[in-house]
Amino acid sequence: MSSLQFLFEARSVAIVGASNDQHKLGGRPISYMQRLGYQGKIIPVNPKEEVIQGLPAKHSLAELDDPVDLAVLAVPINLVEPIVKEGLANGVKNYVIFASGYAEIDADGLNKQQRLNALFDKTDARLLGPNCLGFINTHTQLIASFTTAMENHPLNVGKLSFAGHSGALGAYWLDKTIHANIGVSKWISSGNESNTTLADIIEYLANDPQTEVISLYIEQIRQPELCEKALLLAKQNNKPVVAMKGGKSTAGARATLAHTASNTQLGVDYQAIFQRTGVIEVSSLSEMINVCEFQLNGDCIVGKRVGIISISGGAGVMLSDQLESNGLVVSDFSEQLANTVRPLLSPLSCTQNPVDLTAAMVAQPDMLSNVASELISSNEYDALVIFMGLMDSLAEHITRCIIELERNPNCPVLLIWMGGKAECVQAISAHQIMVFDDIPELVSLLSKVALK
Amino acid sequence: MSSLQFLFEARSVAIVGASNDQHKLGGRPISYMQRLGYQGKIIPVNPKEEVIQGLPAKHSLAELDDPVDLAVLAVPINLVEPIVKEGLANGVKNYVIFASGYAEIDADGLNKQQRLNALFDKTDARLLGPNCLGFINTHTQLIASFTTAMENHPLNVGKLSFAGHSGALGAYWLDKTIHANIGVSKWISSGNESNTTLADIIEYLANDPQTEVISLYIEQIRQPELCEKALLLAKQNNKPVVAMKGGKSTAGARATLAHTASNTQLGVDYQAIFQRTGVIEVSSLSEMINVCEFQLNGDCIVGKRVGIISISGGAGVMLSDQLESNGLVVSDFSEQLANTVRPLLSPLSCTQNPVDLTAAMVAQPDMLSNVASELISSNEYDALVIFMGLMDSLAEHITRCIIELERNPNCPVLLIWMGGKAECVQAISAHQIMVFDDIPELVSLLSKVALK
Repeated sequence: MSSLQFLFEARSVAIVGASNDQHKLGGRPISYMQRLGYQGKIIPVNPKEEVIQGLPAKHSLAELDDPVDLAVLAVPINLVEPIVKEGLANGVKNYVIFASGYAEIDADGLNKQQRLNALFDKTDARLLGPNCLGFINTHTQLIASFTTAMENHPLNVGKLSFAGHSGALGAYWLDKTIHANIGVSKWISSGNESNTTLADIIEYLANDPQTEVISLYIEQIRQPELCEKALLLAKQNNKPVVAMKGGKSTAGARATLAHTASNTQLGVDYQAIFQRTGVIEVSSLSEMINVCEFQLNGDCIVGKRVGIISISGGAGVMLSDQLESNGLVVSDFSEQLANTVRPLLSPLSCTQNPVDLTAAMVAQPDMLSNVASELISSNEYDALVIFMGLMDSLAEHITRCIIELERNPNCPVLLIWMGGKAECVQAISAHQIMVFDDIPELVSLLSKVALK
Repeated sequence: MSSLQFLFEARSVAIVGASNDQHKLGGRPISYMQRLGYQGKIIPVNPKEEVIQGLPAKHSLAELDDPVDLAVLAVPINLVEPIVKEGLANGVKNYVIFASGYAEIDADGLNKQQRLNALFDKTDARLLGPNCLGFINTHTQLIASFTTAMENHPLNVGKLSFAGHSGALGAYWLDKTIHANIGVSKWISSGNESNTTLADIIEYLANDPQTEVISLYIEQIRQPELCEKALLLAKQNNKPVVAMKGGKSTAGARATLAHTASNTQLGVDYQAIFQRTGVIEVSSLSEMINVCEFQLNGDCIVGKRVGIISISGGAGVMLSDQLESNGLVVSDFSEQLANTVRPLLSPLSCTQNPVDLTAAMVAQPDMLSNVASELISSNEYDALVIFMGLMDSLAEHITRCIIELERNPNCPVLLIWMGGKAECVQAISAHQIMVFDDIPELVSLLSKVALK
């Protein structure tokens, strides 16, 4: 068992600074865990209370009957050091520290962080943070975080994990997984990384059997060699890694220093590391979620040839232009494929890629299935993109056609449905076919996953 | 009165091939116009019926008591020529022809199109199409189109017009205006442009008092000199033009030929024309709608300096990176501005651009207004971008703060609210402040409008 397993899979947790107010930093984790059914033991710690949110409380970590696996410190910065000392003295091996005011602020803060870190020297205890939002393990419903992202909706349990330097971006990431119906495994806010770095966390996730895809928001890569090693481990274990890198511009770099004391100007060539380890770099959360969903579906695009079937001639044109300008190839049919497809189309349609089904599809609604099946099985394309727009009157039929298409692992199907009905889009997504509302998001996804 | 005014502002319209079935090509325009209250006279034409959708019908254009301003031909291609001849003989000056099967198909089709066009030689009659979806004039509710985009929602009446080579893309454009609550003036599908070209239509829109912003989907620019003249006229009349150009790639060019017989390989340097006439080129409908909305709000960005206020440090970093990599400048505060802003922030925040409000904003919710007001009035920024995420508990307060910000025409405010409540986003948009769900769309908008 790696040392971080005791942290991220803790079976007992003390919330220090526990509160009866479910909206406070020290109240929210307890409230979440009770509501969601944390499988371990929760021990609220508060010097003045006997009972917190219905649970018997301790006055300090010194009063624990048995050492807990994890102490979450929801206390002001000036109380952190004495509480950590008390915890270490009483056998508590893992800490999450929310407080900020450390290295991200000034020299004095850096001093405080170094003093805090020194407490962990010559111990095998681990600290996540400070200046972080903690972590979540959905599989045991261990919520060592005060993020508000789950206030209205619980998370879906699944196989996508996140780690990164921004707790807030992490919260928006959580919100996006809820709305995209993607299951989450671990969610980790690393903060100032005083003791536990992203490299450690990536290594943990690379070994975590409950994680299949890893997504990262990185400001500074603090231990480039260790980080590269951990990313290679993820690659060996067939876990795609999708990363957003912050602090690349002058203003961005200024902001990372103030944010997590991250110095992005130290000459670490993160792009070379990403290149060597197969990390897919994305530039927004939306793009990250799309790439992760594609990977979670188990899809794979091994070449650049994209087939297009469109209900709109103009959309076929725009899609072709955007794909080709992003390095993909909208290659035309072989003569054989053209001969197979021709009788399936209206005589007014041209038999070529992109295929324009034209309004003829309204009279022959099976045209979509028929043409799509031929393209999918032709082995002439590495991916098939279908473009639909509106089509309310045929929406249920189209949905069924797309869900029932025979799958070819060498030619995944992706759909753009502009103005499509929400329930149809949901039904198709639920069958592991990704649906987009406009062309750019699809093109951006394909350019990330097909050219890798 | 320009000759196209009689077409697009017709006060009487004959629907030839009129149908009682409201879902057929010859039924839908009548149904729309009756439902929406077309201000002119509708005359259904059908050789076999006396009454169509409750209106007295004529058997042919020869039976008209008075010539109508416009005849919409919802008939098969083989009936088109005789009907046009009959109409011209009976004083009908304007035609919309839906039928396809002309130059976009083959040499025979081209022949048919040339014969059709010849009927208009030596007349001042006008033809829109063939192979088009017709047009809409929302101001008189003249719906000379069978587009399905309005089946569930009426259009908003307003000042944004569209013309282009794709009726389907146009339909999705209509759908997007409905959802973005943008008012439409004219909507024109130009099809094969056998007689009325985009150049003519742009000239009409440039002179149309009900049009303030023009959006275009262009495959082939058929009359480059006339087109440039019309675009310059729009510029002189202070009407921004936003255009999507299709057929730039090999596959795209192949598709435009089959779509609207558009040859995009003829060496017309559209980018030079756009450059000389100030056309803003966009690459997707979403981007087009965003740029148009910005222009309709009357906003204007005259420089590259962007101020950022973010509730998330990480989002501030990503936003800075993306803006700077797209040519904008996230310039830091002057000493004077820093001194003004410093006391408004938490002592743990760094006084710099991007500003990270941190969680301190939750305790001091007026921090946003206070800091934003200083940046807006400082004259150090050409635009202010505010980034919010979630914040359900403060959503109404944030909404009020943003709506009530004092406006400075030299520093428009734009908002990203990731996972924001729909009603708050709507309320803010209704006050002419654009709201985005993620960073890329905002960056793409700013890079189009700020660097023009």
